[in-house]
Amino acid sequence: MNNRGKNSMNKGLPIVISAPSGCGKDTILEQLYKKNSNLTQSVSATTRAMREGEIDGVSYHFTTTDAFEKMIANGEVLEYTQYCGNYYGTPKKAVTDMLEQGRDVILKIEVEGAMNIKKIFPECVLIFILPPSMSELERRLRKRGTETEETIAARIAQARNELQFADKFDYLVVNGELEKAVDDVNTVILAEKMNTKRSLSLLEEIKKS
Amino acid sequence: MNNRGKNSMNKGLPIVISAPSGCGKDTILEQLYKKNSNLTQSVSATTRAMREGEIDGVSYHFTTTDAFEKMIANGEVLEYTQYCGNYYGTPKKAVTDMLEQGRDVILKIEVEGAMNIKKIFPECVLIFILPPSMSELERRLRKRGTETEETIAARIAQARNELQFADKFDYLVVNGELEKAVDDVNTVILAEKMNTKRSLSLLEEIKKS
Repeated sequence: MNNRGKNSMNKGLPIVISAPSGCGKDTILEQLYKKNSNLTQSVSATTRAMREGEIDGVSYHFTTTDAFEKMIANGEVLEYTQYCGNYYGTPKKAVTDMLEQGRDVILKIEVEGAMNIKKIFPECVLIFILPPSMSELERRLRKRGTETEETIAARIAQARNELQFADKFDYLVVNGELEKAVDDVNTVILAEKMNTKRSLSLLEEIKKS
Repeated sequence: MNNRGKNSMNKGLPIVISAPSGCGKDTILEQLYKKNSNLTQSVSATTRAMREGEIDGVSYHFTTTDAFEKMIANGEVLEYTQYCGNYYGTPKKAVTDMLEQGRDVILKIEVEGAMNIKKIFPECVLIFILPPSMSELERRLRKRGTETEETIAARIAQARNELQFADKFDYLVVNGELEKAVDDVNTVILAEKMNTKRSLSLLEEIKKS
């Protein structure tokens, strides 16, 4: 019998992944979900109207402005933003429900927002994706060919600002080569599941066996 | 350029691996060295005479009783034992020299000895190998066919005692299936190298780039 598997079914791991723009976070996550089938992305809540084809609880958790603001006031939203007069955010309950089902939950959150998560959700693992160098980040932003020099300069300045928060994260993963970066993020997640503080119930089971 | 690789060349990771007898620690390590070529085992020091074919600094660091006792008094020995009137132990300097060369160093240390290591060597990562269950451990010990019922009972009792220290370790790895356990130990080592507190110089390099 695989006790490790049994234990990990009991409680999932909340994982925050942040990165300055241009560091390839979305591409890493896309590959990561293919590699690790126990990972799931948290479903956001929104106050905007449901659109055709959308499913409540899958596309979004649809809710009212009153309910959303109440959630904010009660510390039940991990992070949120406003766009076109509607709220978008990550309800804590949606995440804890998935964790209870034993799923490891990825929270894709802006660098500064990630700093707040640990206060609400202390068991989170925070992973920061780094560019191999600032010059390489600049080269990648320029390569897209879609942005003006001004936008590129603004993004680099923002990335430099966000890098000031990197040492507050638990792990630093360099996105030099995509495949290596995906492996590295997965390695961190798998290792954290073996962290003693997350395995105490497993230890008790073995002691009693 | 691989900044991660360059950084890891600067300073290796000290790793303590402990396990109750019968948990397959030696077999795991044997496979681990094949999988991860950056790992090296620390060379012990001894006061016994050099034997034919042995090489100083490779087989052992050969030294005198006076010198060994001086090392103990100065806290320069990570752990030691006496056998047939000679000292055997792990000199801190032998380990730090390898770490300086960027090698990750495995310290195979008894469970209780591991508790002292962190005092001398706070940057150590402590990994505890667990049996999948006590009944499986008993089955494995019995399967060897070389031990009396009395010895088996004594080993089980010792294992139960050693398990009391498991929650003082950083990571718990279950040796249910050998290949999985080897992968798990390697995963922990690779993840720890991305731990932010071990990657601050890398972060500074990237900020300056």
